[in-house]
Order: sequence, then C-alpha cells, then structure tokens
Amino acid sequence: MVGKVVIAGGGPGDEGLLTLKCVEAIGSADVIIYDRLIPKSALRYARPGTELIYAGKEPGKHAMEESEIIRTMLREASNGKIVLRLHGGDAFLFGRGFEECVAVLSAGIPCEVIPGVTSAIAAPEAYLIPPVLRGTSSSVAIVTGMEDPRKGRTFVNFRELAKAVNTIIILMGASRVGEIARELIEGGIDPGTYVAIIMRAYMENSKVTITTVGKLATEQVNVENPSVIVIGGVVREGLKAMKTAGINFKLNV
Amino acid sequence: MVGKVVIAGGGPGDEGLLTLKCVEAIGSADVIIYDRLIPKSALRYARPGTELIYAGKEPGKHAMEESEIIRTMLREASNGKIVLRLHGGDAFLFGRGFEECVAVLSAGIPCEVIPGVTSAIAAPEAYLIPPVLRGTSSSVAIVTGMEDPRKGRTFVNFRELAKAVNTIIILMGASRVGEIARELIEGGIDPGTYVAIIMRAYMENSKVTITTVGKLATEQVNVENPSVIVIGGVVREGLKAMKTAGINFKLNV
Repeated sequence: MVGKVVIAGGGPGDEGLLTLKCVEAIGSADVIIYDRLIPKSALRYARPGTELIYAGKEPGKHAMEESEIIRTMLREASNGKIVLRLHGGDAFLFGRGFEECVAVLSAGIPCEVIPGVTSAIAAPEAYLIPPVLRGTSSSVAIVTGMEDPRKGRTFVNFRELAKAVNTIIILMGASRVGEIARELIEGGIDPGTYVAIIMRAYMENSKVTITTVGKLATEQVNVENPSVIVIGGVVREGLKAMKTAGINFKLNV
Repeated sequence: MVGKVVIAGGGPGDEGLLTLKCVEAIGSADVIIYDRLIPKSALRYARPGTELIYAGKEPGKHAMEESEIIRTMLREASNGKIVLRLHGGDAFLFGRGFEECVAVLSAGIPCEVIPGVTSAIAAPEAYLIPPVLRGTSSSVAIVTGMEDPRKGRTFVNFRELAKAVNTIIILMGASRVGEIARELIEGGIDPGTYVAIIMRAYMENSKVTITTVGKLATEQVNVENPSVIVIGGVVREGLKAMKTAGINFKLNV
C-alpha cells in the first residue's frame, strides 16, 4: 500500500509558531525530512521510532541534494510510509515545497501541503515593523537576494522594484546587500530610505540593525544569516514603535 | 494593576492553521475582540467566562469602528484584563494590528504580537500555486485591491507593478478586478498571463477560477469575497499541479 507525503512549513523558528496541523503531522509521521531552520524543539512532537533525516539547506552547502530529498520521499512513501517534509517558514515561499509536491504527485503518491508562518512577514513583526501600513505603504514585494547560479544573470530587477512598491522585503540577501542597495538607488529610491536588517528572528541572539539604503550602498554593513531585510517607510514607523516598546536595536543612519 | 494586550493572527480560516501560541493566547484571555474571518471554531479554546466581542470587518461595513476597538482594548487592559485582539490571517499584513499595537504601547500598556499564517500565501498554496518558483518567478508583490477612500487616488501603481515583479497577489480585490487588469495591461503585462481567483480558501465552499488578465480586463468575471487573486506564470504551473492532484477548478482562458 502506498503511503503519503506531507509538505509542511514549520514557521520562523519559534516552537510556538508551529501550526496545530504541523504538530499533528510531526506526531503522525514515520519519516521526517527536516531543514536547518525549523524550530529546534519541533521534533519532540515526533513519536518514538520516527526516522529523522536532516536535509540541511544552509546557504551554499546542503546536507542532502534536492534530488536526494525527493528520491528519499518517493522511496519511503512507496513503501507505505507517511513522510513529513518539514521546511522552515512556509514551504512554498522560497522553499522547494512546490517542486517536491509536483514530484510526489507525478509519482502517483498523495501529497498534502500545510502552510506555515513565513519569516518574511513574521521576522519584521517581531520588531514591530509592519510590511504595509495605511498612509505609508499599500504594497510589499518579497524577493530573494540570492541568485540561482544557473541563471547567470540578476533575475530580481531591483531597479524597477525601487519605484513599483512601497516596501521591499529581501530573504537570503546577506551576501549581496550592498549591490542590491546600489541597484535600488539607480532605480530611483531615496538613499535616505530606512532599512531594517533583522537577524535570527525568533531564535537565540536575535537582533536588528536600522540603517539606510545609502549607508548600505557605500559602507560595509554586517549581515548575518538567516536575515530578513526590510526597506521602506514602514521601517521608520516600526522604529518609533520599538522605542515605545523598549525593544533593543542598533542604529546606523 | 495594568493588564496586557495580545495581537494575534488567526490564520486563513482553518482551525488547524492556528499557531500553538495563538491557541494559548485564546485560552489565557479575559476578553477576546475577534474579526469575521478567524476560524469559526477557534473560540472554543477560550475559557468559560471569557468575554467575546465581535469586531466584524466585512468590506464596507464594520460591526465596530477601529477607534472603538482601540478604546475597548485600552479600557479592558487598563482594568487589569488580558485582552486578545484576534485577526484573520496575519494581523500586520492588511490588518490593523500595527496601529492597534502602537495605540496600546503609547498608553503604557504591554503589547505582545503573534504572527499568523497569512492567506496571501496560504490561499494559493491550498490550490498548489507557489508564490515564487525557480525559473518562473523570483519576486512576489502582495498588494491591496481596495483603496482607502480617504486617499482619493489609486495608491498601488499597477502599471509599474506589471513589469517589476513576476507574481502579483491581490487581497481584497474583488470589486476592482477589471480595472486592475486594465491597468496591468497598460503597464505592459501580457494579456495572456494566467490569473487564479481563489475564493474562501480553507472555508466552506472554497473554489478557484483560472482565467487570464485579458479576460478580466474585458469580461465580467465573478469574484466573491474573501478572495485572493494571483497573477503570473506561477498560476500555469499551479494549474498543472492541480490537474495531477485531481483538484477541481473552473477554467476560463
């Protein structure tokens, strides 16, 4: 009898931001293939005897190749197992959850998808930065800062993005942040626009630096992974709220 | 003694997509002020005796004005109560959670924010539509289709958006979808670009219509609230996945 595959988002790293369905899926799985950025304690919901497979997914080095992850899912589910593929954040937003789902369905194996809390929205929220805000921003773009090396060219057009939306949120942008800032300025963004660099939200040693696009373009600013970078007028509003709430931040404007 | 306010996102409408922290907050609250689009069964986690206040938030008519919601939160928390403000989706993404948080903090009352699963990402995911996809889309804009009547002008620039991102996701766009499609075409989007109109995801009678920007611009297409509209090449990939999975859809291309 064929098993099934569940593809779930485990949220930004805080166990409390797991969904009920995700916890249930962890407790029902025979095999769990999990990413680096899931909440550390999430696996304690697994039944004893559940096979736990670490898939890695650190920038630049994977414990498992994507093809190996898919082969493992198909093999275990074909053997009647319930396989949980547990992603950090949401599995479809810069995870590979969709590709995995298609591979599973194409093999004739049932696949269930459980959305998660995405760090793209939740990480700014941890520092009281709204992605949109009446009067300040009614549009937000979520983009990757990393480029697929196979593409050989910049796929996200930061020059056009600069004027098209009010807020830009960049995931996996640590290594290219200076270059991105310069492209945004070329695209017409005000160099005085505030930027929040949020590092390790919902994890240990979480912190935020508030700076500007101009500073990012010209100075070496330290960005540690995992990071979420927010650019736009909403950052200034968030900064005021952080001050009122007594939240710590580093200011470099 | 002063109480506190918790501002939480209740996810897109499925009880299973509540986070653990949100369930805990429901169970700890003395007063819950809740929106229309929270999961219907979420309130069963409340303790007996919890005061439940319906805030409404249907398009165009609110059971409570925002100012009344804030007054109620401040009054109850000042009286030592634990107040939960429970939003549908995520409270900061087109909710008013940020404004509420600022009002609470400014009154010297502690405020905690719990992110939720946003329907902007989760609703497409229910129909296997990824917001981004390697080789197809590396940027997604999330925008509101509704305009603040006080603004008196279109705030989201759909003409510029047309070429700046690969995927556009519109919340609360039901009433303006034809107009938006025409603006996107003026901005240079291919009229053949696929559009998914997802209605009532994770609720009863959930359904999806797949159409094109060109059809939306010229025909009357029925869009019921709550809806999430996805525009871009990812919709075509999602459609293939829906077919493989045997998910029902209405096709109008």
